[in-house]
Amino acid sequence: LWKKELTNILGIQYPILQAPMAGGITTSELVSAVSDNGGLGMVGAGYMTPSQLQNQIKDIKKRTQRKFAVNLFVPNEFYCTEKEMLDGYKLLEPYRSLFSLETYNPEVMPGEKARKMFHDQINVLIEERVSIVSFTFGLPPKEILTLLKEQGITIIGTATTVQEAVFNEKMGVDAIVAQGSEAGGHRGSFQENEDSGMIGLMSLIPQIADSVTIPVIAAGGIMDGRGIAASVCLGAEGVQMGTAFLTCHESGAHPIHKEAILNSSEENTTMTKAFSGKWARGINNKFIKDFQDKQHFLPPFPVQNTLTKEIRSASKARNNPEYMSLWSGQSPQLAKKLSVPELMEELIRESEKLLNK
Amino acid sequence: LWKKELTNILGIQYPILQAPMAGGITTSELVSAVSDNGGLGMVGAGYMTPSQLQNQIKDIKKRTQRKFAVNLFVPNEFYCTEKEMLDGYKLLEPYRSLFSLETYNPEVMPGEKARKMFHDQINVLIEERVSIVSFTFGLPPKEILTLLKEQGITIIGTATTVQEAVFNEKMGVDAIVAQGSEAGGHRGSFQENEDSGMIGLMSLIPQIADSVTIPVIAAGGIMDGRGIAASVCLGAEGVQMGTAFLTCHESGAHPIHKEAILNSSEENTTMTKAFSGKWARGINNKFIKDFQDKQHFLPPFPVQNTLTKEIRSASKARNNPEYMSLWSGQSPQLAKKLSVPELMEELIRESEKLLNK
Repeated sequence: LWKKELTNILGIQYPILQAPMAGGITTSELVSAVSDNGGLGMVGAGYMTPSQLQNQIKDIKKRTQRKFAVNLFVPNEFYCTEKEMLDGYKLLEPYRSLFSLETYNPEVMPGEKARKMFHDQINVLIEERVSIVSFTFGLPPKEILTLLKEQGITIIGTATTVQEAVFNEKMGVDAIVAQGSEAGGHRGSFQENEDSGMIGLMSLIPQIADSVTIPVIAAGGIMDGRGIAASVCLGAEGVQMGTAFLTCHESGAHPIHKEAILNSSEENTTMTKAFSGKWARGINNKFIKDFQDKQHFLPPFPVQNTLTKEIRSASKARNNPEYMSLWSGQSPQLAKKLSVPELMEELIRESEKLLNK
Repeated sequence: LWKKELTNILGIQYPILQAPMAGGITTSELVSAVSDNGGLGMVGAGYMTPSQLQNQIKDIKKRTQRKFAVNLFVPNEFYCTEKEMLDGYKLLEPYRSLFSLETYNPEVMPGEKARKMFHDQINVLIEERVSIVSFTFGLPPKEILTLLKEQGITIIGTATTVQEAVFNEKMGVDAIVAQGSEAGGHRGSFQENEDSGMIGLMSLIPQIADSVTIPVIAAGGIMDGRGIAASVCLGAEGVQMGTAFLTCHESGAHPIHKEAILNSSEENTTMTKAFSGKWARGINNKFIKDFQDKQHFLPPFPVQNTLTKEIRSASKARNNPEYMSLWSGQSPQLAKKLSVPELMEELIRESEKLLNK
């Protein structure tokens, strides 16, 4: 029924990956529950310090014997002058007052420090013998990939275009997540003009599948057995699902975030750079609307992400959905309030039924 | 294998509809070949005068005994002052000089005349006993729908969102084309802010299928058996394919247009209002790039469409791809140079294989 290559490579039973949602959503409960139910749980470690990451890995290991994965953000080169950062800070002042946040001197981690942290994250994965690592926003330098391979670690890359997929294969990754325009959260793009590459999965999966030989994992808007079966028909060997796991009981998403998804229609999500400086899909709210026409004047990722951090936290703390990032894919009407075992059972049953007919 | 409702309603063998591509692409050869090979050929009559439409219907009837369909554009309300039109005309002057086109007094068909022409098109369909009509850009008034139903004519609507699909069902259409963000040519949107509703098919099909009881036809980026099988898994009963038929021998698309698709990657298409004043997806070229930052200052459809007509024709006549509308969906790398019988045979064989497994 399922092509065996992907599940063999990953050492899992069903080719269902839980997407790495950064910012506290991928709790140890969520990751271990997905893995325990035959899929692949994944830690969204993009914003974690090495010690936070190490602690969570140790915690997950106590909860499950199965394989799980860790996702890292590849640090990007960014250019932002002191003045650009201060201008960005000024744009945010009304929101800081709204939440009575004290003024502060914005300090953004310089590129060198980010690269150092990334290396330390890699070292944690090696030390803790994590068996699968996935990368977003590109790939690390060849020497890191070689090091990971020498340790027997399986590598998953992310692509939003055929060209990015071909680059991933050339660099030696073991499988590729093909992220369609339907996907919630950050675009994984890294090669192209950031405005390009909004390719829907109906187009993206077969064009990538025709261009690479490694297994393709479909991501974006997939919420149920129908999406899994469709992805397999299109040429993928598996799926990566974010929003569907975000609303599960085990996820650490803020209740306001879960409710926003469960109450949204497919028209409520939009692309924005307002929260982080990088394009991402979330449910439209006041903060996104306010910055709609200023997207091209914002500081780049990760500067804008750092600048908005306290505002997002304050919004969450006050249960106010208007100033936090409510990441969601384009299928919120298919979201359910389930436990991971319930969701996994449904996914497997429905997709197998469709693929057997 | 195939759900029987859609094929029964339409009186065809396979639930494969050839999309109504306006502007000379849907030749009688193309339409009759699709119908003769078990699918549903469709005339893109959006820009046709009633007598052109009548002539083509008579021509197709000579070529095939099978059912075929006609697609009409529902006239939209538009607001455009004389000054706005002249400003739009001025933006186009450099292109008119490029092709040595004489200056002219732009005259746009007023709304009343467009509605009159639409009524005359409807009367042709009734007179010629066309059995299936599809609508884009909304639905005609209830009395026209009732008239068509009294004549036993099957009605297909177009939706880009769940809300548009629900409206279509409420108005009594027999089946709905769910147009995903992957689709080439004009967005069929009619209810919402035109910037919204770019929903990928992986999200759109199941959310529409869950919200209506009439058959759903998937459209956008579908080029082969994989896309057909995936659409069925997602809850559609059939597909509507444009770009895949556009590059067929029988299509009337300009050879430059066919070549542009056959040589494009999935990243080469983009959304533009430059050609018609309404959002549409085509292969990026000089004309689109020039208007990238002026999209919101252009006259509305159909004014801009009328204003650019001579420029598009001149570009075509000189085999110059840079100033004509090269409509294409997001899967150009899956396009092939085939005859309709060859393509239909492949589509049916591949999709049945995938759906039987």
